[in-house]
Amino acid sequence: MKQETLERIRRFTTDRDWDQFHSPENLAKSIVIEAAELLECFQWSGSEFDLQHVKEEIADVIVYTQDLLDKLGLDADEIVNMKMEKNEEKYPVEKAKGSAAKYDQL
Amino acid sequence: MKQETLERIRRFTTDRDWDQFHSPENLAKSIVIEAAELLECFQWSGSEFDLQHVKEEIADVIVYTQDLLDKLGLDADEIVNMKMEKNEEKYPVEKAKGSAAKYDQL
Amino acid sequence: MKQETLERIRRFTTDRDWDQFHSPENLAKSIVIEAAELLECFQWSGSEFDLQHVKEEIADVIVYTQDLLDKLGLDADEIVNMKMEKNEEKYPVEKAKGSAAKYDQL
Amino acid sequence: MKQETLERIRRFTTDRDWDQFHSPENLAKSIVIEAAELLECFQWSGSEFDLQHVKEEIADVIVYTQDLLDKLGLDADEIVNMKMEKNEEKYPVEKAKGSAAKYDQL
Repeated sequence: MKQETLERIRRFTTDRDWDQFHSPENLAKSIVIEAAELLECFQWSGSEFDLQHVKEEIADVIVYTQDLLDKLGLDADEIVNMKMEKNEEKYPVEKAKGSAAKYDQL
Repeated sequence: MKQETLERIRRFTTDRDWDQFHSPENLAKSIVIEAAELLECFQWSGSEFDLQHVKEEIADVIVYTQDLLDKLGLDADEIVNMKMEKNEEKYPVEKAKGSAAKYDQL
Repeated sequence: MKQETLERIRRFTTDRDWDQFHSPENLAKSIVIEAAELLECFQWSGSEFDLQHVKEEIADVIVYTQDLLDKLGLDADEIVNMKMEKNEEKYPVEKAKGSAAKYDQL
Repeated sequence: MKQETLERIRRFTTDRDWDQFHSPENLAKSIVIEAAELLECFQWSGSEFDLQHVKEEIADVIVYTQDLLDKLGLDADEIVNMKMEKNEEKYPVEKAKGSAAKYDQL
């Protein structure tokens, strides 16, 4: 995200003095709560969904995820690259291509 | 995230021919599954947690969220700013400051 | 469930001195964690799933739900009947029949 | 649960012709969605929660879990006992007593 979007997310919390509620645990709960609201957009159908609602719920997931990164002093690029390294090893192209199987079933 | 991190996430999917599994619905399920794995790091304690494990689970949430943005052709900055606009209205500073109450309880 | 199954669930916790970890909050986290593991059985397909795995994950959801009922001194029949009363009013047969719409969209 | 409560849950679905929406996958999504709503009661605090709200969300989890059992023709006692057998082996009393560690960390 752009620096100004990040700043907007951070200012939202600071302005409301909400940092006190943002323990890593509470933010992890919040991410799963918002992710489930996103899933609710697809509860009874995978093909008919309200795109505007989907956008809002994805945004909520992103905001709480950023809050957690900030709380723990983490950098998105760093942890994603670290994890992608692992994923690339766990799912070698030649084995995983076209398969939805879990790595321990490949 | 940096462009090269985004590209790495996208290449991971393309190389494995996994786009076929990445329906919006399946990605929404995946986000909630990873978010719950993140929560599991805090299942029995909010204060003692394995930071390395937390990093990996946050990364998984970020990756699937990016996959969903890509699938739907959405831009993170755009939807987050759209949602922050709503949040700022729903939680006016003067009312929400220091309170964890939901907007309809303020 | 049968009384002896309920007793087995309770004895499992007592024998291990785990009641100390069973705060309502921790049990709520546990239910969502297990529910997401159940969902993982259907992550990439709704039609091909491992029934044995599904059974185990449903059982985990039931066990933690019972733990929470016990912790709060609640009776399953009582709260389910109380909620069904509400559901029956929110979704009148004539309006809801054959529709997957939420009550506020009926 | 009592037979009449089970029948009420089943009649609710049949009367509304909702069985068509109750694929195992959709019910698994529904359970996680309701479990996350239950977790929301504890989002910012583990000690201050609205018991009435908690009861309703637990009831929703129970109802969708029962719907899934019915859909798959499963018996709660049977699968819970099967899983408790496994749990008792994975967490031997002498090792697990008083510890919140996962079985592979004991």
